[in-house]
Amino acid sequence: MNVQELALASLNDHRLFTFLDLAGTFAFAISGAVAARNRGLDWFGVMVIAFAVACGGGMVRDLCIGAVPPAGLTDWRYLTVAMVAAWMTIAAGRLVARLTHPVTFFDSLGLGLFAVTGAQKAMIYGHNAEVAVLLGIVTAVGGGVARDVLLNRVPVILQREIYASAALVGAGIEVAGERLGWDSSGRTWLALGVCFTLRYLSLRYKWNLPRAPRHGDNG
Amino acid sequence: MNVQELALASLNDHRLFTFLDLAGTFAFAISGAVAARNRGLDWFGVMVIAFAVACGGGMVRDLCIGAVPPAGLTDWRYLTVAMVAAWMTIAAGRLVARLTHPVTFFDSLGLGLFAVTGAQKAMIYGHNAEVAVLLGIVTAVGGGVARDVLLNRVPVILQREIYASAALVGAGIEVAGERLGWDSSGRTWLALGVCFTLRYLSLRYKWNLPRAPRHGDNG
Amino acid sequence: MNVQELALASLNDHRLFTFLDLAGTFAFAISGAVAARNRGLDWFGVMVIAFAVACGGGMVRDLCIGAVPPAGLTDWRYLTVAMVAAWMTIAAGRLVARLTHPVTFFDSLGLGLFAVTGAQKAMIYGHNAEVAVLLGIVTAVGGGVARDVLLNRVPVILQREIYASAALVGAGIEVAGERLGWDSSGRTWLALGVCFTLRYLSLRYKWNLPRAPRHGDNG
Repeated sequence: MNVQELALASLNDHRLFTFLDLAGTFAFAISGAVAARNRGLDWFGVMVIAFAVACGGGMVRDLCIGAVPPAGLTDWRYLTVAMVAAWMTIAAGRLVARLTHPVTFFDSLGLGLFAVTGAQKAMIYGHNAEVAVLLGIVTAVGGGVARDVLLNRVPVILQREIYASAALVGAGIEVAGERLGWDSSGRTWLALGVCFTLRYLSLRYKWNLPRAPRHGDNG
Repeated sequence: MNVQELALASLNDHRLFTFLDLAGTFAFAISGAVAARNRGLDWFGVMVIAFAVACGGGMVRDLCIGAVPPAGLTDWRYLTVAMVAAWMTIAAGRLVARLTHPVTFFDSLGLGLFAVTGAQKAMIYGHNAEVAVLLGIVTAVGGGVARDVLLNRVPVILQREIYASAALVGAGIEVAGERLGWDSSGRTWLALGVCFTLRYLSLRYKWNLPRAPRHGDNG
Repeated sequence: MNVQELALASLNDHRLFTFLDLAGTFAFAISGAVAARNRGLDWFGVMVIAFAVACGGGMVRDLCIGAVPPAGLTDWRYLTVAMVAAWMTIAAGRLVARLTHPVTFFDSLGLGLFAVTGAQKAMIYGHNAEVAVLLGIVTAVGGGVARDVLLNRVPVILQREIYASAALVGAGIEVAGERLGWDSSGRTWLALGVCFTLRYLSLRYKWNLPRAPRHGDNG
């Protein structure tokens, strides 16, 4: 076991983190499964989209830093959590509909958590700050982009809502804190908290980023 | 030449396998070229889609297991077969239309073969059973997903038809057999046969997986 | 620093090349940002699409040859140039509209340059001619394909226009010249010039590749 694996193992051993990571994975998978069901996909399609949303971002990150095979493929817990979310959506649609509020909560938490852990993993593998911030964003939003591409629509996160921008803030705080020598645990909670709060408040108060005016618009 | 390369070479030396592999590649390429032509793409677009369907799944598998550059790029036979399929579709549309039955046959065969060889290659590279099954599915269906994403539609394999699920069964048998110590050649033929039969019968008798009921449906 | 890095460094030190590379990146980013703005994406979406067009092709190439993390993520200049292009498009749409002619010029130049440097980088990493030509094309057109997939339309380069085919000619000349022992600088300028001229003339005179006749067409 080399230094990188030790660092990753210590990261993974953090039980609260593991719980939040799997809760975020579950929330992401639910969002994928619900969208797939609403497009009339069959059972297998629902499972594929659930898995793609839950693990797609992390898999692209792992390919970009050379951590192959990606964790989403090797760690049975991600697959299991995604399959449970898919089956709940298929078999218990009414229950899942009642989960909307907790799912939004964990989706916001997952966004923050994936942004932070994505940036951390890139730094643990020895890459620079730019790579870490960009891959933090990719980890957090890649799954949602994959969902929308597979369901044949323009990724909603590129159109409106504070989403990728919240991931940028979260990953940025984590990376800046690491460079400034902040306490590891403190910066992580700060980054996670700011990203989560930004996303959650934006949903509640319907904040959006401005659109770029098209050429010729009066605005 | 290390152990992995030896094992792969012995796999590749199996002449019947090589023939089936190229026949499956050809069938996949034809399905891509026909779809591209029907969407009004130009000659180059038809060639790109034919190549993407034929080699896309295997390329994603190779990136995920760190086998770079992917075999689809390095082995001239895949490119050649895909280009021949594209040109046949462009230059001899009526001939290709008459090939529908053999193409369906080889496409089903290709599905089984890609699922099995994809799982084998992942195991040869030393990865666990989960990775092997998942990458078997990816190898078999990745090209078809790429075709539909590029042609701007929801991947048909996620919507209906026993397709990815047949690949799952094929890859699962291959991996389970390897773990249970079954004879290498026997388990491969069994996995290939079951996947092919499942797919072929589902086409003939129009079997579909059930769709997930949408919330609010009466069903 | 190993041989590969030395060769890449000497490539990168070539100041004119660096200028053309960044100019091509800028032109590609503008094309992405304008398309994203016209689809009504928000500021962040415009920046993401600009970056994806500018760096997407090179990132796929780098993943395929195992050069991780991809240069688009590690080199701050690409990100900076893409962000400047995105902000210009958002903040100064009228100015960008007046840039149409220079942007078309640099886009054609970028096409040629990315095709040639993509093929070179694959050869520097020791891969064969087929890989080099294919990855030259991928580098040149991958970003445009990513733009169209994210904006939910069939990639325009697969439908009409001499675009990917010009990249094929450019990458082909570069690789053939290397195999035939031509002077490095001479073959690069020839490949770049032919690809650029082909693309630029095709835009000016509206050359297109023929479409494949659909089965049943009279043509």
